[in-house]
Amino acid sequence: MLTLNANDITPLYKQLYQQIREQVLSGRLAAHAKLPSVRDLAAELATSRNTVEGAYQELYAEGYIYSRERSGYFVSVLDHDVAPLPAAPKPRAADSACTPVDYRYDFHPARLDPASFPSAIWRRCFIESLQEHGRELAGYPADFQGDWELRCHLQGYLERSRGVICEPEQIVICSGLQQGLDLVAHLLKESHGSVAVEDPGYPLPRSVFHNNQFRVVPVPVRASGIDLVRLRESGASIVYVTPSHQLPLGYVMPIASRLKVIEWAEAGGNLVIEDDYDSELRYHGKPIPSLQGLRPDANIIYTGTFSKILSPALRMSYLVLPRALLAPFRALYRDYFPTVSLLEQKTMERFMAQGFWERHIRRMRITCQKKHDALLNSIERHFGNRAVVVGQGAGLHVVLQLLAENPGEAEIMQRAARQGIHLLPFSATCATGESGAANLLLGFGGMTSAEADEGIRLLSGLCFGNSSARAD
Amino acid sequence: MLTLNANDITPLYKQLYQQIREQVLSGRLAAHAKLPSVRDLAAELATSRNTVEGAYQELYAEGYIYSRERSGYFVSVLDHDVAPLPAAPKPRAADSACTPVDYRYDFHPARLDPASFPSAIWRRCFIESLQEHGRELAGYPADFQGDWELRCHLQGYLERSRGVICEPEQIVICSGLQQGLDLVAHLLKESHGSVAVEDPGYPLPRSVFHNNQFRVVPVPVRASGIDLVRLRESGASIVYVTPSHQLPLGYVMPIASRLKVIEWAEAGGNLVIEDDYDSELRYHGKPIPSLQGLRPDANIIYTGTFSKILSPALRMSYLVLPRALLAPFRALYRDYFPTVSLLEQKTMERFMAQGFWERHIRRMRITCQKKHDALLNSIERHFGNRAVVVGQGAGLHVVLQLLAENPGEAEIMQRAARQGIHLLPFSATCATGESGAANLLLGFGGMTSAEADEGIRLLSGLCFGNSSARAD
Repeated sequence: MLTLNANDITPLYKQLYQQIREQVLSGRLAAHAKLPSVRDLAAELATSRNTVEGAYQELYAEGYIYSRERSGYFVSVLDHDVAPLPAAPKPRAADSACTPVDYRYDFHPARLDPASFPSAIWRRCFIESLQEHGRELAGYPADFQGDWELRCHLQGYLERSRGVICEPEQIVICSGLQQGLDLVAHLLKESHGSVAVEDPGYPLPRSVFHNNQFRVVPVPVRASGIDLVRLRESGASIVYVTPSHQLPLGYVMPIASRLKVIEWAEAGGNLVIEDDYDSELRYHGKPIPSLQGLRPDANIIYTGTFSKILSPALRMSYLVLPRALLAPFRALYRDYFPTVSLLEQKTMERFMAQGFWERHIRRMRITCQKKHDALLNSIERHFGNRAVVVGQGAGLHVVLQLLAENPGEAEIMQRAARQGIHLLPFSATCATGESGAANLLLGFGGMTSAEADEGIRLLSGLCFGNSSARAD
Repeated sequence: MLTLNANDITPLYKQLYQQIREQVLSGRLAAHAKLPSVRDLAAELATSRNTVEGAYQELYAEGYIYSRERSGYFVSVLDHDVAPLPAAPKPRAADSACTPVDYRYDFHPARLDPASFPSAIWRRCFIESLQEHGRELAGYPADFQGDWELRCHLQGYLERSRGVICEPEQIVICSGLQQGLDLVAHLLKESHGSVAVEDPGYPLPRSVFHNNQFRVVPVPVRASGIDLVRLRESGASIVYVTPSHQLPLGYVMPIASRLKVIEWAEAGGNLVIEDDYDSELRYHGKPIPSLQGLRPDANIIYTGTFSKILSPALRMSYLVLPRALLAPFRALYRDYFPTVSLLEQKTMERFMAQGFWERHIRRMRITCQKKHDALLNSIERHFGNRAVVVGQGAGLHVVLQLLAENPGEAEIMQRAARQGIHLLPFSATCATGESGAANLLLGFGGMTSAEADEGIRLLSGLCFGNSSARAD
């Protein structure tokens, strides 16, 4: 029995379509059963022929019914076992799990000052880009490696301030390190089976290469750089390093080790991935020039990002490929498209072209240094000789090694959380997932120095329980 | 011999740093050689101590020299064989290879009208988003799957207009189909070895799965849908299909085949990837509801995009994962970050929330239908009975099958290029890389109907050499 309800918001033809569809799917309308003619059904339901015609057309388009020349519509043959109608969806409420917790003291190692994003300038660059390139939004971007002008500006910037020597042809704009490494992993999978990573080190590369079926070999890293003996023993033919500012320990790889790493790559036909993630932020002396710049023609894949200076939420980073890899790279990704919005690339290009990028870097370096120095003072004041700082002088975080008796990372993390303190576990950077001593990863970019000081005071309290550190 | 040139734009300390560095790297300054004291060198060069101190500090920071308590700086031990200084970079000129050619008649199958992007509204949504979420740009986005509010709006939209039944938890925002499929491929690699694809079909999925070491099995597709017998024989446990609008042939998979495909997935623990790339654009009757909506709890990964209606250059698409895959998906990508800019996601969210998205779809459907109908007229007029159109009635392209004697695809492509006509080869959609008959892939979204008509006239001319088709 078909019924139409004129008060229903669903259009009449749709109501009819749905009811017949249900009868077909449920089998109440048998295969090859003839449907009433449009005119008859319209009359029967006291509705217009258009309504019936509309319903029939949709049922026909989706194959629920078929038509025979001059004899009308018939029910198609379906397999009724497999298709109940979809259940009505539950009403929805935004799930709190997904909305980020707001910590009073956020020591996340890669947070910037919430007020630091140059919104006004970015907006202007965006508006100009949209105006100038709006028409290009109608098609797929021509170049998988990213916007040519942006790559030209990047080339100049990398050469001037990072000592990277390359051509724009070698640059690939990526939507973050993981996407860039994923492209690299696909590319190298054929010829390489295992990759060495710094231990302790950034977990993301480990997991990207692991997800690409690489054997991931942790190699200890010290102030003198990655352990070259262990690297050679590892049998890995790729090494992922952070020479300008070791993540997380903050060491600068000395020139002697740099040359040895290059030699390792040259000799064995091996490959170095240099992650230069935050080296704009060096507070004493100038930034450390890149490894790539020492041997622009070596097997070095250089990668950098806009995340640590401008914004991690824009998801923009870049690769610099060695010339030797360009041809296979382009062959492998012939069918691919870029992963970063053209508008965002054009906005970034303008931001660089008009000098805002380097101005922003200078500004960030100053404000971050202030926070950095203040943090060291706070640590000195609240931890005194019960802890020692490792990896100061650069970037957005330091590592605090606890010397005195302490409850251990897990317990410290729990107590911290209870006091609204956000810490990332240092142990996550260790291949074993366990750091011997208790180390705290202290990011200082996202807080005011006053907040950081209070956070440090609380931390020292919950590490060593000195009365000064009651949470208020 | 060290010399400082005050007229050089390079700061003095940097000149000094570079010269000493070169001497160290070249070996002219031997290992352990003592450097002159800051005071002596400053005097010798008639420059300030700060200049020398600055140079020494950088050399020290980079490990070219080391210091001994109270006895000054000494040259470090380096391996001199491996480190010539970087060659000076060549001057750069934007390479034309990267700037897209401008065709007079662009039949690319996925181009939109250059004037169609809603710039004014998009700009407003962007500015509001930047204003409201500027502070969030300081940190990494919380949720790898993408912005929660955007996913909630998408859920509502997909349910209303695509019949997709899911929760926002199942949605993943991706930077294009290839990135989404890459996530899927990684996830399924452990449990699946081969994937069936439609032949002819979209080349991108073939190459993504191939790059992920899947065996890719082409299965013929007809008006009745993908060949289910061949699918079963293929031994593949995943199938990639475009049921609402087969790419490139434009067929709608009839309900009977849909149910069989679902049955195939259900029975064998197999998996269906439904690419619903352009189904908003259906010109007769309403869009065809998704396969996923028939069995929301089946093993169906649904994917859609903003590329075909709004802009391919924004690089924004989405996946809807079956509930069963959520846990392994989140485990595998625990360390990953989203790949789409937060600003762009927030802008899109506003665009949807304020009803602009669905309004834009309605507008695009009307303008594209006009172009579609006009194209069919042009084809009728210029090709007559020498060709037949396949897959009309939806999307941004049709396929033109040439019936009469013709020079074949390769020759036609060449002649077309010479007349400023851009065609993508239909054969690229065939697994063999060769289409039996000559088929032309004719996208109509990017041209005015007048341009398309002239393009079609020229095409028919260069296919069949009728005098009417001289290029002017």
